[in-house]
Amino acid sequence: MIIDKLYELVAGKGHVCIGLDTFAEYLPQDFSRDFDTLDDAIFGFNKKIIDATFDIVACYKVQIAFYEARGLKGLSAYSRTLKYLKSIGAFVIADIKRGDIASTAQMYAKAHFEGDFESDMITLNPYMGMDSLTPYLPYVREKEKGVFVLVKTSNPGSRDIQLLTRDNGEDVYETVAKNVVKMGKEFHGKFGYSSIGAVVGCTHLDEAVSIRKQMENIFFLIPGYGAQGGTAADIKPLFSDQNGGVVNSSRAILLAYKNPLFAGIPFDLAARKEAMRMKGEIADHLNEPLYSEKQLIKN
Amino acid sequence: MIIDKLYELVAGKGHVCIGLDTFAEYLPQDFSRDFDTLDDAIFGFNKKIIDATFDIVACYKVQIAFYEARGLKGLSAYSRTLKYLKSIGAFVIADIKRGDIASTAQMYAKAHFEGDFESDMITLNPYMGMDSLTPYLPYVREKEKGVFVLVKTSNPGSRDIQLLTRDNGEDVYETVAKNVVKMGKEFHGKFGYSSIGAVVGCTHLDEAVSIRKQMENIFFLIPGYGAQGGTAADIKPLFSDQNGGVVNSSRAILLAYKNPLFAGIPFDLAARKEAMRMKGEIADHLNEPLYSEKQLIKN
Repeated sequence: MIIDKLYELVAGKGHVCIGLDTFAEYLPQDFSRDFDTLDDAIFGFNKKIIDATFDIVACYKVQIAFYEARGLKGLSAYSRTLKYLKSIGAFVIADIKRGDIASTAQMYAKAHFEGDFESDMITLNPYMGMDSLTPYLPYVREKEKGVFVLVKTSNPGSRDIQLLTRDNGEDVYETVAKNVVKMGKEFHGKFGYSSIGAVVGCTHLDEAVSIRKQMENIFFLIPGYGAQGGTAADIKPLFSDQNGGVVNSSRAILLAYKNPLFAGIPFDLAARKEAMRMKGEIADHLNEPLYSEKQLIKN
Repeated sequence: MIIDKLYELVAGKGHVCIGLDTFAEYLPQDFSRDFDTLDDAIFGFNKKIIDATFDIVACYKVQIAFYEARGLKGLSAYSRTLKYLKSIGAFVIADIKRGDIASTAQMYAKAHFEGDFESDMITLNPYMGMDSLTPYLPYVREKEKGVFVLVKTSNPGSRDIQLLTRDNGEDVYETVAKNVVKMGKEFHGKFGYSSIGAVVGCTHLDEAVSIRKQMENIFFLIPGYGAQGGTAADIKPLFSDQNGGVVNSSRAILLAYKNPLFAGIPFDLAARKEAMRMKGEIADHLNEPLYSEKQLIKN
């Protein structure tokens, strides 16, 4: 089960997932100048960030939209980023949030678990129902792949569908959570977590406690940290025994070189320092600090 | 408003939307042989289908998953298909079903309303809430673009979220429908329909009657016809005054050349005949037949 690999990465390297949502304007100008095209520069930027952080983070999440927005050349930079991550043995989550009828879902599974856009795990949207998720399962069963299903996000719009209360008293996202738990049962790995994971945003403390209780074998991909407002305290209840989730941060890491805290430091090293700071902050909150924050800043 | 163009196309050419979900295995072998690559053949196949049907259908829906499954080269065939459709003035719906937080949605809007993957309208998934849809609106307001939001699909899985009943007695999809109607108000065109449309699958008669009543200014993209089991009778209540929707058919048209009814006819002409047959069938059911079915088969 692929999730065992992610569990071990978290145990060994901490909870940080670096979001490579690489917007062209994030690149330092003097860096881009050395490349023939902006898409080459974007890949070059990603490569430097990866090289500077690979030993200290659990995984990378690549948001395809930022590359798709640049058309075919952007998607080539996306593909090169995924291939580079694979070549060095990094764990890659493709943030694609696909959701479609079965025959189309089969195509998306092929697109993102094989070939140019191959990744380890992908994010999926459940609005069309569980039969829009099952076409990905043969890859989970046989090809060491996994998925994270959107359950509860932390944007204000999450109230529009996810937080609607059903006639049985349950919120819609809780029903989705139950379906994910059920679907995940077949795919539990040796550490008790399923290769069918869930996207659960940084959220209110009490909600987080309830979500972890309802989804005890489910590994969480947790967005919304840092730039989107979530803190280490918010997400603490989503973990159990220091594991069971990765926390994504994108802008705060990619743009760390603009952070006064890291002034004058090259962007890749600044990214490393911010990833280390975040890793320490989360570890501190999970009660067994790996490093003190002071040591981190010095690194 | 872009929706006025689609309304006029339906009024002039009928209700058929051809789904270019072009799977490599759909291509006749003796056709593919003449191309250097399978992706070139896929674009060549699409081009022949488009040329043979452009004068008799309202629009084309291109399902990106079928191209994405073939990686970068597949997406080049997707891009060429969209560009060819644009070059001849055809109306294109990109079936991408995206749904993500605002900053990511902005990227998807750029990706599919500009550049390599530019289309007229796109499909969107509402699970993350209305704030995941609003980033597309500047294009609707200023750039003659539009969207179809997933409301009620016809796959069995639609019961898992869409058909859940709320504590106020409403089904989840009805709440989504209301939100779409509300969001659409700003974008009504001269025929009364909004450039914010909805995806509503072929469904039970009574459900269709209720959906049209709840969404009277909303233009429908209706999948599930033909190969997926929907009939002209099922969808009749989704229209009003012979307009307000397009009906997608993909496999039945792309594979018409394998239909015994069109034996021995080249694939593009067989596609035309099936599109004509379908157009006639829908028109007959909408009470004012444009053509008799007999004439259509002879065409």
